[in-house]
Amino acid sequence: MKYSKNPLTNKEYKIPQSLDDSRNIKAFLDQHEGKKVVVVQGLGFVGAVMSLVCANAIAEEYAVIGVDVPSENSYWKIKSINEGVFPIVAEDPLIEDFYKKSLEKKNFYATFDPCSYKYADVIIIDINLDVQKKSAADFSLENFDVDMSNFRNAIKSVGDNCKKDALILVETTVPPGTCEKIIKPIIEDAFSQRGLENDFKLGHSYERVMPGPDYIKSIREFPRVYSGINLQSADAVEVFLKSIIDTSICDLTRLENTNATEMAKVLENSYRAMNISFAVEWSRYAEEAGVDLYSIVNAIRVRDTHSNLMYPGIGVGGYCLTKDPLLANWSRRELFKAKNNLDMSVNSVSTNDQMPKYAFERMIDIFGNIEDKNIALLGISYRGDVGDTRYSPVEGLYKMIKDSSANVFFHDPFISFWPEQKVKIETDLNMVLAENIDMIVISAGHSIYKEDDTVNKLLKLESLDIYDTLGLFSEMQILELNKKHNLSILGRGDI
Amino acid sequence: MKYSKNPLTNKEYKIPQSLDDSRNIKAFLDQHEGKKVVVVQGLGFVGAVMSLVCANAIAEEYAVIGVDVPSENSYWKIKSINEGVFPIVAEDPLIEDFYKKSLEKKNFYATFDPCSYKYADVIIIDINLDVQKKSAADFSLENFDVDMSNFRNAIKSVGDNCKKDALILVETTVPPGTCEKIIKPIIEDAFSQRGLENDFKLGHSYERVMPGPDYIKSIREFPRVYSGINLQSADAVEVFLKSIIDTSICDLTRLENTNATEMAKVLENSYRAMNISFAVEWSRYAEEAGVDLYSIVNAIRVRDTHSNLMYPGIGVGGYCLTKDPLLANWSRRELFKAKNNLDMSVNSVSTNDQMPKYAFERMIDIFGNIEDKNIALLGISYRGDVGDTRYSPVEGLYKMIKDSSANVFFHDPFISFWPEQKVKIETDLNMVLAENIDMIVISAGHSIYKEDDTVNKLLKLESLDIYDTLGLFSEMQILELNKKHNLSILGRGDI
Repeated sequence: MKYSKNPLTNKEYKIPQSLDDSRNIKAFLDQHEGKKVVVVQGLGFVGAVMSLVCANAIAEEYAVIGVDVPSENSYWKIKSINEGVFPIVAEDPLIEDFYKKSLEKKNFYATFDPCSYKYADVIIIDINLDVQKKSAADFSLENFDVDMSNFRNAIKSVGDNCKKDALILVETTVPPGTCEKIIKPIIEDAFSQRGLENDFKLGHSYERVMPGPDYIKSIREFPRVYSGINLQSADAVEVFLKSIIDTSICDLTRLENTNATEMAKVLENSYRAMNISFAVEWSRYAEEAGVDLYSIVNAIRVRDTHSNLMYPGIGVGGYCLTKDPLLANWSRRELFKAKNNLDMSVNSVSTNDQMPKYAFERMIDIFGNIEDKNIALLGISYRGDVGDTRYSPVEGLYKMIKDSSANVFFHDPFISFWPEQKVKIETDLNMVLAENIDMIVISAGHSIYKEDDTVNKLLKLESLDIYDTLGLFSEMQILELNKKHNLSILGRGDI
Repeated sequence: MKYSKNPLTNKEYKIPQSLDDSRNIKAFLDQHEGKKVVVVQGLGFVGAVMSLVCANAIAEEYAVIGVDVPSENSYWKIKSINEGVFPIVAEDPLIEDFYKKSLEKKNFYATFDPCSYKYADVIIIDINLDVQKKSAADFSLENFDVDMSNFRNAIKSVGDNCKKDALILVETTVPPGTCEKIIKPIIEDAFSQRGLENDFKLGHSYERVMPGPDYIKSIREFPRVYSGINLQSADAVEVFLKSIIDTSICDLTRLENTNATEMAKVLENSYRAMNISFAVEWSRYAEEAGVDLYSIVNAIRVRDTHSNLMYPGIGVGGYCLTKDPLLANWSRRELFKAKNNLDMSVNSVSTNDQMPKYAFERMIDIFGNIEDKNIALLGISYRGDVGDTRYSPVEGLYKMIKDSSANVFFHDPFISFWPEQKVKIETDLNMVLAENIDMIVISAGHSIYKEDDTVNKLLKLESLDIYDTLGLFSEMQILELNKKHNLSILGRGDI
């Protein structure tokens, strides 16, 4: 007997043995006769919020069904959605607002039963596609893998059930070539088994969702590219996107085929990963030359042609930048049979993945042995002012600090529990500072840490070590802090 | 007996044996008693124009002396300046305007005599500092060299002559650390030989000059960073820059020391080189996947965070991006004794330097053997709408085409003579198209080539091969051209 626990309510749910939820699905749809049905496959950070966007579409009233697998990690989400608690906590108030509206309209139902696909006019694929990494130091093809089996099964489940003229819209970040070379054949096979003609429509369009205060807006009001495997498919995607996205304020751009939009997505994120690894490389050099890379970057970013230049930092986290360049390289080699790798893009992931290790080594270099010291990690999230711990670079740093037999205290104003490390996080900074702290590590760029109020609190403490991995403090704050404490900043020579 | 030929007037000058020009210098300065004297060392693309900017300063009337060596390549510039023909031809009408004004005011004199430094209140270092490359495929430290000897001699010549409280302002792009670790000791040694105290001021500030229609503006109205080896030096640099730069419309930013501004310059250009090599890498992948990278880049650049993403192309040219990342790496290893290289930045130069070779190989792949074919290269410059052939990537492509025994015709609206290859360039496109051309290669992004008028001319020709290395044509033009001709575009799959 397996259970799935809702971390928001602490309620535990018995995972059902059978996948049959057809009675509830029928009952739900009976309430919405005449409406088009949108089924979203995957209820993660994108799928769950995408479901809300569809349930509150701009130009159409949809009946929306969210589908996920009844696993330990996902089953509670299904139950939670149907019981009135949205499974994703975010700083965007629109999320609660949209969820409430969907509860009032009763037009969003969550289930695990793949039979829901057979009612769908539109099926949106929002499931994860992960990369399995073996060594952070080298991402030659032997050292990472893209296991497509779960993804293939999920697509097959759609093909086995969907209407013959359904629109299948892939939003998952996939290796370029996936729609044409993997998804299309799977659906065609399934249709041929079912004796159906290939009337389905298949398209690709990626969101540019950004967890944080503009979560919903980043889906609804942000320009998008889209494509289809044929003209009919691309037209259908366009009609659907126009019903959920506010095209009065953001453009839709059609690209020539699904390879192009799939490539656009991984290129976009590879560009970002590369910019970050470029900053990493120059951070080391700046430390060696004894200069402050932050002020150099500021001076250069005034140029429009250089405005994307990034600041130094502790590394890259989140779900996308840590894997998308690898998906691209895998596609180039495996799906397009190219001889060459995307060396620069792949190396940038490697550089970024090694950042926490470098940050740790520099910490030891500067502050010495940390055994038995009380160390406070301020910020667990992978991004400032956001509560998202997925692939946070703080995790690597934390593990190395813990392995050095230091006592670690955690603070994050946005996170009370760290799911990946299964530890509680203190959200009240005063509580953490009340411990007998020897060293403070600024490990995420939350605004609270650079408030004068916080700096004044730090100045009231006994002399301690402060390690800023993000260059968060102002010049004035640095001067003050450095008078009393032992301050070091990543990407900057001695202060 | 050596001569130096002025390519603008075809006049030949006998190069003098003696460096003595003191009588003329004195006569020049006698006309400008009471004025501060600015001496610009180096009369190349930056120094010559910087001299004009100083001779037409915003807040001060300077007497300006430009100094260069009396070599075959440079002596004619000295003579030409003094004879009323400015040695740099550019599309910016302000250059002629500023030069005329300096002729009227008679406040700009050019010479080869280093004694001029002894009159200078400000000495601006604008000489070249080149990198010697051995192999484009690998820029490990063994495969390139930074020969500082000419640069050192030029600095020594300043130290041997200058006033004891002169301001020496370095504008040359140098390996970070150069002011502190190379220039300062040379001047100190020279002063010690002369029995002088070290009252000199030494600073660094780089221009962001851009050859083209805004040549002068790119010096006078563009934000700048600056620094000095001490507070007194930085203050003196600030005062001087404020007299020549329009700080009402652009900011001056002081950085902490000369290492920081020197690093800012090479970082700025390395960032650009990296962005270009990133586009190169993805161009290959786009060709393999049969998609159009240009439209993908357009779709992504709408995001502010991705606005610096670059288009595919034939490679990088110009004086800066082809060497500055190497200067940085040399500095990191040689001046700061680091163990690690700036791998990403160095590799980007290698990738970019190999682009002409790739462009040539793809040309042969697509169009087949070119032996005895008549091939027209449209555009010789390294940048669109600019007449500047320095390190143009077209040079590499041209050599390979020539070596394949094709007949090459050249067109460039901005260049009538290619100094690096010593060949004449046709500036009238009709003349080139009148030859019995088999293949047209669009090799520089001049606007004229994408005018409908030009495309119509191409459409009137017999069927030919068109190889666009820059994605210059519009979708509509591509459709038209492709009906009649055999068109291929770098960074794009089959059309």
